[in-house]
Amino acid sequence: MATLEFWYDFASTYSYLSAMRIEDFAKDRGVEVAWKPFLLGPIFQGQGWTTSPFNLFPKRGNYMVRDIERIAAYRGMTFRLAPVFPQNSVNAARLAMIGAEKGWTPAFTREVYLLQFRDGADISETDTLAKALAAVGQDPETLLARMREQPVKDALRAQTEKAMFLNIFGAPTFITEDGEMFWGDDRLEQALGWAAARGAPAASSA
Amino acid sequence: MATLEFWYDFASTYSYLSAMRIEDFAKDRGVEVAWKPFLLGPIFQGQGWTTSPFNLFPKRGNYMVRDIERIAAYRGMTFRLAPVFPQNSVNAARLAMIGAEKGWTPAFTREVYLLQFRDGADISETDTLAKALAAVGQDPETLLARMREQPVKDALRAQTEKAMFLNIFGAPTFITEDGEMFWGDDRLEQALGWAAARGAPAASSA
Repeated sequence: MATLEFWYDFASTYSYLSAMRIEDFAKDRGVEVAWKPFLLGPIFQGQGWTTSPFNLFPKRGNYMVRDIERIAAYRGMTFRLAPVFPQNSVNAARLAMIGAEKGWTPAFTREVYLLQFRDGADISETDTLAKALAAVGQDPETLLARMREQPVKDALRAQTEKAMFLNIFGAPTFITEDGEMFWGDDRLEQALGWAAARGAPAASSA
Repeated sequence: MATLEFWYDFASTYSYLSAMRIEDFAKDRGVEVAWKPFLLGPIFQGQGWTTSPFNLFPKRGNYMVRDIERIAAYRGMTFRLAPVFPQNSVNAARLAMIGAEKGWTPAFTREVYLLQFRDGADISETDTLAKALAAVGQDPETLLARMREQPVKDALRAQTEKAMFLNIFGAPTFITEDGEMFWGDDRLEQALGWAAARGAPAASSA
């Protein structure tokens, strides 16, 4: 089965749009999704940006909100921008790194996005993360402790460095097995089509 | 009939994608297109950018080329980035302002884009512009002289100021009669759908 990497930051509004639909869309096309949480902050800093471009360029930021409102309405989703933007997504991303071991990362990711962009919660708060963990059947106490351990921090740092190495400059970004990069929720269909047509024919007959 | 404004800069690669398809798409949906050439340069300067963001942020620029190559291949179009990018588009835009009087702006615009992004020509050169004018049945000598007159320069400056006033920050940008803004070739279908559904019902029954 072909695999498509889905690179996302928990503070990214357009990543929310993709996270809520990628698995159904991928299943329809026989593509497996590899969830890749990372941090946009260090990547933006590398471009000389101290915050989100939506804050640095307010016209672009105002447009983003309206653009996502329209898309969300069309898809029957709720979208609200929480009071703080962008939120500190480092702890959410560390938890998502842990979740990869036992496969709860996708469900946890969707839950965190809904708490942030549907309910207006702050995902940098431990309470919000505990709520998301509980919602996907995981033990908050154990996992919030592990979240603070060095190997987990290192794993997320390595993943963000991998994103830089791959020339990722925004989120969501989709990368196929043959190295094609697609940026933005509006390229999801194209990325899945590419992955399905060209991805790993040998593996699917194994 | 509903009208959709199409704001574009002659140096903009994604505007090329839209210019080549907007009229057929609009006709299918019963929407009229108002072609609005303007200059992105002053708008980028207002954001503190001295050149295209594709040059300021090279990873974004490299991605743009690959993204448009894929889309162009899918649509059966040719795309090559001319050696100079972005090109000085001021004279092409001035001619397009003149063309609005007699209705040859759309054909002229497509011709200039093809010379630039299909053939690799430099649209800041008088020869290229003369070729585009001749291709759409206009007299190069007369029009290249008018292009340098103050009223034409003023008209383009006013149009660019209007773009700033409308909070346009990139190209292509589509604006409906009820003031909805859509940015990017990938929003063209959505913009036309919006315009067709909500645009000027009174006018269409007049």
